[in-house]
Amino acid sequence: MSVGKNIKRVDAFDKVTGRAQYTADLVDEKALIAKVLPSTIAHGRVISIDTSEAEKVKGVVKIVTCFEVPKVQFPTAGHPWTTDPEHQDVADRLLLNEHVRYYGDEIALVIAEDEISAKHALQKIKVEYEEYPILLDPLESIKEGAPLLHEDISPNNILASSSVRHGNYEEAIKEEGLTKVEGWYHLPTVQHAHIEPNVCYAYMEKERVTVVTSTQIPHIVRRVVGQANCLPWGDVRIVKPYIGGGFGNKQDALWEPLCAFASLSVGGRLVFLDTTREETFVNNRVRHAMHAHIISWVRPDGKIAARKLKFYSDQGAYASHGHSIAGKAMGSVNQIYPCKNFEADCYTVYTNKTVAGAMRAYGMPQATFFTEAHTEDICKQMNLDSVEFRRKNSMPKGFVDSFSKNENYYDTYNLLIDKVMEMTDYEEKRKLYDQPQEGPVRRGIGMSLFWYNTAVWPISVETSACRMVLNQDGSIQLQMGETEIGQGADTVFSQMAAAAVGIPVEDVNIVSTQDTDITPFGLGAYGSRQTYVAGFSIKQTGTILKERILENAHRYIRMPVDVLDLVDGKVVRKGDGRVLMSLCDLALSVLYCHEQGNHITAESTYQVKSNAYSFGVSVAEVEVDIPLCKVEILDICNVHDAGNLINPQTSEAQVHGGMSMSIGYGLYEQLLYDEKTGRVLNDNLLDYKLSTFMDHPDMKVAFIENPEPTSPFGTRALGEPPACSPAVAIRNGILQATGVSFNTLPVTPQRLYEGFAEAGLLESDSEISARREHYEKTRDELNKLSQETA
Amino acid sequence: MSVGKNIKRVDAFDKVTGRAQYTADLVDEKALIAKVLPSTIAHGRVISIDTSEAEKVKGVVKIVTCFEVPKVQFPTAGHPWTTDPEHQDVADRLLLNEHVRYYGDEIALVIAEDEISAKHALQKIKVEYEEYPILLDPLESIKEGAPLLHEDISPNNILASSSVRHGNYEEAIKEEGLTKVEGWYHLPTVQHAHIEPNVCYAYMEKERVTVVTSTQIPHIVRRVVGQANCLPWGDVRIVKPYIGGGFGNKQDALWEPLCAFASLSVGGRLVFLDTTREETFVNNRVRHAMHAHIISWVRPDGKIAARKLKFYSDQGAYASHGHSIAGKAMGSVNQIYPCKNFEADCYTVYTNKTVAGAMRAYGMPQATFFTEAHTEDICKQMNLDSVEFRRKNSMPKGFVDSFSKNENYYDTYNLLIDKVMEMTDYEEKRKLYDQPQEGPVRRGIGMSLFWYNTAVWPISVETSACRMVLNQDGSIQLQMGETEIGQGADTVFSQMAAAAVGIPVEDVNIVSTQDTDITPFGLGAYGSRQTYVAGFSIKQTGTILKERILENAHRYIRMPVDVLDLVDGKVVRKGDGRVLMSLCDLALSVLYCHEQGNHITAESTYQVKSNAYSFGVSVAEVEVDIPLCKVEILDICNVHDAGNLINPQTSEAQVHGGMSMSIGYGLYEQLLYDEKTGRVLNDNLLDYKLSTFMDHPDMKVAFIENPEPTSPFGTRALGEPPACSPAVAIRNGILQATGVSFNTLPVTPQRLYEGFAEAGLLESDSEISARREHYEKTRDELNKLSQETA
Repeated sequence: MSVGKNIKRVDAFDKVTGRAQYTADLVDEKALIAKVLPSTIAHGRVISIDTSEAEKVKGVVKIVTCFEVPKVQFPTAGHPWTTDPEHQDVADRLLLNEHVRYYGDEIALVIAEDEISAKHALQKIKVEYEEYPILLDPLESIKEGAPLLHEDISPNNILASSSVRHGNYEEAIKEEGLTKVEGWYHLPTVQHAHIEPNVCYAYMEKERVTVVTSTQIPHIVRRVVGQANCLPWGDVRIVKPYIGGGFGNKQDALWEPLCAFASLSVGGRLVFLDTTREETFVNNRVRHAMHAHIISWVRPDGKIAARKLKFYSDQGAYASHGHSIAGKAMGSVNQIYPCKNFEADCYTVYTNKTVAGAMRAYGMPQATFFTEAHTEDICKQMNLDSVEFRRKNSMPKGFVDSFSKNENYYDTYNLLIDKVMEMTDYEEKRKLYDQPQEGPVRRGIGMSLFWYNTAVWPISVETSACRMVLNQDGSIQLQMGETEIGQGADTVFSQMAAAAVGIPVEDVNIVSTQDTDITPFGLGAYGSRQTYVAGFSIKQTGTILKERILENAHRYIRMPVDVLDLVDGKVVRKGDGRVLMSLCDLALSVLYCHEQGNHITAESTYQVKSNAYSFGVSVAEVEVDIPLCKVEILDICNVHDAGNLINPQTSEAQVHGGMSMSIGYGLYEQLLYDEKTGRVLNDNLLDYKLSTFMDHPDMKVAFIENPEPTSPFGTRALGEPPACSPAVAIRNGILQATGVSFNTLPVTPQRLYEGFAEAGLLESDSEISARREHYEKTRDELNKLSQETA
Repeated sequence: MSVGKNIKRVDAFDKVTGRAQYTADLVDEKALIAKVLPSTIAHGRVISIDTSEAEKVKGVVKIVTCFEVPKVQFPTAGHPWTTDPEHQDVADRLLLNEHVRYYGDEIALVIAEDEISAKHALQKIKVEYEEYPILLDPLESIKEGAPLLHEDISPNNILASSSVRHGNYEEAIKEEGLTKVEGWYHLPTVQHAHIEPNVCYAYMEKERVTVVTSTQIPHIVRRVVGQANCLPWGDVRIVKPYIGGGFGNKQDALWEPLCAFASLSVGGRLVFLDTTREETFVNNRVRHAMHAHIISWVRPDGKIAARKLKFYSDQGAYASHGHSIAGKAMGSVNQIYPCKNFEADCYTVYTNKTVAGAMRAYGMPQATFFTEAHTEDICKQMNLDSVEFRRKNSMPKGFVDSFSKNENYYDTYNLLIDKVMEMTDYEEKRKLYDQPQEGPVRRGIGMSLFWYNTAVWPISVETSACRMVLNQDGSIQLQMGETEIGQGADTVFSQMAAAAVGIPVEDVNIVSTQDTDITPFGLGAYGSRQTYVAGFSIKQTGTILKERILENAHRYIRMPVDVLDLVDGKVVRKGDGRVLMSLCDLALSVLYCHEQGNHITAESTYQVKSNAYSFGVSVAEVEVDIPLCKVEILDICNVHDAGNLINPQTSEAQVHGGMSMSIGYGLYEQLLYDEKTGRVLNDNLLDYKLSTFMDHPDMKVAFIENPEPTSPFGTRALGEPPACSPAVAIRNGILQATGVSFNTLPVTPQRLYEGFAEAGLLESDSEISARREHYEKTRDELNKLSQETA
């Protein structure tokens, strides 16, 4: 069986040798270049645009302004469509916007023969604005009298809100002996920072427009390009080559609608919309900044009796994925720690900031931070053992969610906690660091659980289609609508297909490029859905292909189809395993058969009506240098229950990536805005601090492989989950080390300084001087010693 | 119904605006350039190749010689494969050949950073040969003691031979009162001269090699590239973009195997094998030159009693399509004029000339020339009316071929003759020109029937596969293995698909590019098979798609599927034609259905087990200037019975193209060889004379649309047939005008001079002087007159 094995990634060789081609590698050098004119205010209205000087620039082919685009608002979210208008994504933007809602909003487009001419022309365009006050925080946006971003959509800047009610909170909190723990938690805007920006190029053939683009969701982008440009959707073709990461940013229609519009504006000529890192930070999507307010009522034994929470999610200027992220975040709290008396309200609010969309784990990193920081705060306030608290309150075996019908089939959280404690010497270290620490450098170890659900059923339609084609040599072509975005999807699809058909994995040639003209419909890479959902269509299609193969084999082998099987690329007799014919010989015979020549293929759609839980835990051991306001991660470990692993090695690599991201969320990453202008201050990889491998210890990964019974291959989500819990485990480690609760991420030196100062942990100036003197003396002595030995 | 209508070609706009992309448009500019070293002898053996100086040329990446290629011979013919070794094409060449068999044979390959370096290196390579005597005529090659071209394949240079025997020729010729008519007929080598040479480029992904190439037969080329390079066929991917004509030359693996080899030789780097017109003439394929010897025994009433013939076909250096062309030519004689006592033998013979392969109408232009020139020779010798002879002897209604089981369902030849006579005033003009003509300029009108059969069943497997995909707007994608090669195939496929599904033709988006990784298996463009054969798979697949659509419609409309139909893109009720739902609404609902989301597609292979006759007639009216040895075509007309026409306008255009080619065959085209060296003398479009529209009168075209009962759309061949009969109609016109039988084409001024001289038609020198004097005097008078009037 080809599943459960560490086969090499199918794209490994081409990617490391540079053979693999990305969008910018594919565009013809003679393409026209399109550049976007960004607004220089964060909120207001474009009164006029004077392009007369710009049009004189040599090489300029066409300039289009916000006054000339179709006046049809469109949605950008990478969700499957629905014909039910009630459930369609909010359509609140145009290709270029007169009503400017963030600093950098797209207001005009220059198409030129080359990049220099295009940039030169941009500089020559003169814009007049009417300016409005700006809003940079959802709590400001919802105040009465705040200027409205989308008058037609919301009278109060709230894009959407929702509530959950379980039991009776007000009654429950009357129980005697409860401790009330209350906290505010805050998360900033962060960005995906994938290696390859979303670049795209477009051209026309016949009446149709093709966009080649770095996207996670080609079939969805097709629809949005059609909507934005008022084209029949069948007149749009999206091609997705290899892409350099997405992390959810490319689960949105980003530049594609505008790129198609650019080509349509110049008679179908080839137009390349090359974009910069700065534009990726400012004009694409970011993760929702959020505020959370949580009140928990806890019994003396540590059991949560009632809980109330409010989330405020910062949508930025346009709807994109909108409220679904905050909604999912809110819903998750009562999944990880089910509590009978639960009140939650959440609000997704427009602000004059970068548009927030999908980002790795879709609200779960936020919810995990809020929930698990609050968990430690409870235990600290009540002097409880937080591991025991987690064991007592977390989702038990047998739990069934009333909405999704997901069931927790295993005693997963206890298994995960046991495993991560074993891997990190958690118990011993926790005890050790609980001893009073007095020195400037202190240590702590923190934990965090997370909860995730795989795929999007029953919220959205959940479907995957697959096509397989038998080649003349017995190998197969595999076409999936689901996309490789760097995560290794093609490799696990190939492994599952090999298993489903009964051939060696080397005999599966996956077509990595999606082309909406010919690729079976798939929704793409999001919701960590692909291995789970595509597993169904691969299994189903592989079974159909295998049946067709065996039916044909019957003609040559003259044995009942029932007794035949396909194993490792050979037709065998089930009873004794005797090899009767190679698939290569069979494929040749069938294809070229004079009487019944047949090209054996199979294609099918699987409508998935299930969903699965995915769970995990992180532990981080940290050393905090209090005077230096510096955190070092000494040890970090993630343990996941993602069901069966198709490829343990690539699974581990996936977890490494997520842990690295989450370390960034914990300690470094935040997109900063100028308070007066709303301009992004650190829109580049120098000023926006990502964690790199210099900041990591060796990252430990382990798995509990509880097979998911609803999945054909026993799998559950693993794509996004690794990014959920490490950040807050680090925060909880700092709490143990220093006794300070940092309730705003990232825990930067500035925040540490403020927190330690408030807690009185920082030394006085004279203490610092004394310590420096001591240090220098010691260093001199050491230097002398080492010179003598040398 | 979208069939039978003059819709615009689906590729018209893109082709006239230059948007359509061909192979050379697609190759990356950074590709390595491969150039082939041709042999400078026509027959011999390479003793050594010294590349040391060439390798020093800057920019040279790799040089490979004939000593370094896989020692596995492969076939190149664009035939479907067969697993029966007896029927496989002859494998008689390597990628580069040590045993050199024609002047220009490929012996080494230079791969360089650019073209200049590659050409420079070619000049620096030193080759030592052992030389053998050369053979330029099949009648020479078969002589005893002739040097052998392929010792391992043939002991006498005969690649293959075959015979047909019907009745008893020897007995039949004993009948009293028979006239014996005997003649030799000769046709030269000609070349396809398509606009775009066969260029290709190759690169590797993973372990697989991709070749993008200008070919008619991507799926077949895939197999040959695999065979030549000893690769599993599934590791080869062929992509065919738009191509600029093929005419059968690109129904062979031409440069593709070597191009793949080039990329394999440099670690999978992108290699472009750009080729010249000269290489297209010399290294690709040509039409078989042939000699025919025919003896007919004719009764006084003009009925053929017995017939004996021998064809000698000039294969050139390698087997390519080999004997199948001469065999088909031989077989056709007794189809057009069925004769009970028939003896025929034909031989396909290796010579040291350009390799002969498929060319428009695959032996039929040769057979038509031999048969119809001989027809006029019979009638001339016996003083018979050749129209009456044709009516009496040609295939009658109800004729069934014992091998193919083709039936002639109509009195086709009489209908065709009636029509062409009406269109050309044939009867009146024939009578007029039968009057004695004494002057230097004389006129004649000639006729020729032709016979053709559509597709290749039962000789080869005959199959076509098709895939259709329903888009969100109710349009469909259509994928065919059969190829657009400039002839308009995509347009008629789209029309047939629209009719089969029940949607407007504008809603069919055909995927023009074939990519063997994902395109349904199709054999490609040859045998004028495509409209006929693809008609089956389109009809079948369209019916499946329509059924799936209506089954889904049932869910929304709640009417029995039986009463539903799809008409013009709308679901209607059959009884009253009421429109119940648009296909667009249905497609959206089905795709995004929360409960039963489904991507509606259909794919199927049709194994065709029939074949169809196709017939036609040409008439050419000519004026022959005897002293100037010049022929002018005054009128020319083709009438075809190709069954129903899917698109009358593109059908007419197709006939125009064929007529133009055949005018070239009649009067201008021949590839000339130096008798001593075997070198091609006119390997360019300056010296190789094609007919152009300056040489044509308005070409008349008419159709008799007798529907073909075996075809789902009533169609038969029209691709190649137009090139069969005009050449010999011209020759027959010259015969009427001058009384001279020209039995070798083309009828160049040189041949006319020789023929007229032999017939005593040319004036003496003094007569010419007198005429010139008279002419000049007349001209002077005319000039004077015109000056006076002015």
